[in-house]
This record gives sequence, structure tokens and C-alpha cells, in this order.
Amino acid sequence: MERIPILKIGDVLLVSIQVDLEDHSVLALQEDLAEKISATGASGVVIDISAVEIVDSFIGRMFATIASLSRLFDADTVVVGMRPAVAITLVELGLTLGDVRTALNLERGMEILEGLTATRRGTPGANGVPGLARR
Amino acid sequence: MERIPILKIGDVLLVSIQVDLEDHSVLALQEDLAEKISATGASGVVIDISAVEIVDSFIGRMFATIASLSRLFDADTVVVGMRPAVAITLVELGLTLGDVRTALNLERGMEILEGLTATRRGTPGANGVPGLARR
Repeated sequence: MERIPILKIGDVLLVSIQVDLEDHSVLALQEDLAEKISATGASGVVIDISAVEIVDSFIGRMFATIASLSRLFDADTVVVGMRPAVAITLVELGLTLGDVRTALNLERGMEILEGLTATRRGTPGANGVPGLARR
Repeated sequence: MERIPILKIGDVLLVSIQVDLEDHSVLALQEDLAEKISATGASGVVIDISAVEIVDSFIGRMFATIASLSRLFDADTVVVGMRPAVAITLVELGLTLGDVRTALNLERGMEILEGLTATRRGTPGANGVPGLARR
């Protein structure tokens, strides 16, 4: 398995991280994502980390980089599915995910993205409270 | 990474296979899926194999088993994202995926599931031609 697959659901790209991330796979993922956002005109990226057991500053930076990258294509990024143990570690170590938004699970993440897109494009979100999702 | 994560999108469970499958991981996946379908009442399962480079009879049987399992919970299964090289290998080796439905990508797979669910429950599908998706 060489590359992390990027799935498309409607207007959103979904990346599910299941393998231990190394430098080259992170670079490949960023490259693939940039190409895919550009090709599809996606308005959001969801990164699922429910299979990730260890998050360090390296992975934290990756999220921030992907978020900045997506932003250049006018897309928002949400990280979903963080394990409780991972969240505790992040807080204990004082690590932050920068400006990256997080949500409990994929469905919540999609709702947030819908709200953000609606806010940015000036139309009401599906949940009627588009502003609520923005931190 | 011990287990393959199962994501939920609306009424559908999504499994993205990114690691080389061994006996124990396949068994764990089947167990997890059965539990998750039972817990969520999902109407469909999509298995994304866009990262899978080699499919043999073992993996073929796994799809068939998952499909039978899902059926017991009144859920349909669609395999999506097969690589062209994998499809060619399957045909050349004379391997079949049994009764398992396939679709080009996640979005098509979701459409098929919508159609199937609508057909089974006697309401028109979102695409208006629910019968079309059934093989």
C-alpha cells in the first residue's frame, strides 16, 4: 500500500488515516490532496484519525499544513474521530493542532463543513445556524 | 494500528481498506462490522478498495462473507474503487466476487445503496430508478 486513498463524498474529500505516518507518506498525502482539491473543486476536507493511536507534534503540524493548503483552494479542513487517549496526550504534552477544527465523528465534521461553506458563500447552512460551527 | 476503522455517513457504513489483510484483521473487521451494523441499524456497507493492489481468492471470499453478514442485518454491501489492474487480475485468474455488487467509486456506491434500500422498503429512490442498480 503506497498512498493513502482520498475519497470524495459530494463536495467533501475524506482521508482516513490507518497507517503509521512517515515523512514520505505525509508529503505524498499533501501532494495528492492538493491535486484532488484542485481537480474536484471540493469545498472541504475531513481527516479521520479514529485509527490513530499516537499523535505527536509531527502529525499535529501535518494537520496544520493540510489546513493551510486547503485554504489556498478555498476549502476548510476538519479532523474527526480523535481517540480519548490521543486527546489526553495532546493536552498533557501541551501540543496544539493550531487552527485546525476538530469534530467528534465524520457526520459532525460534515455538518461543520456544510455550515462553514454556507457562511463563506453567504447562503444559510443545512442546520440553519451556519455561524455556530466556526470557532 | 490494530483495527480497520468503520465510518458512518448517514445510513451507510464506510470501510476503507488500506492495509494488507491478514486472517486476524479480516476476522476482526467482520466482527466489528457486525457489531456496528447492529448498533447503528445501517442500511448499507461500502467497502473502498482503491488502495488495494492485490486481490486474491482470500479477499474475494471476505467480500462475500461481509455481504452475507450484512444481509442478515438487512443491509446491502457494495465494493468500490477497484483498480483497473486488480479488475484485470480478477478476470484473468477467473476469480469472482460472488454476489457482491461493485461500483466505480464511493459516490456511485452510495447511489446504488440508496436505490437498493428504496426498492426494498418500497419507496422511490433518490435517482428515481431504484431498480436500475440491482444486478
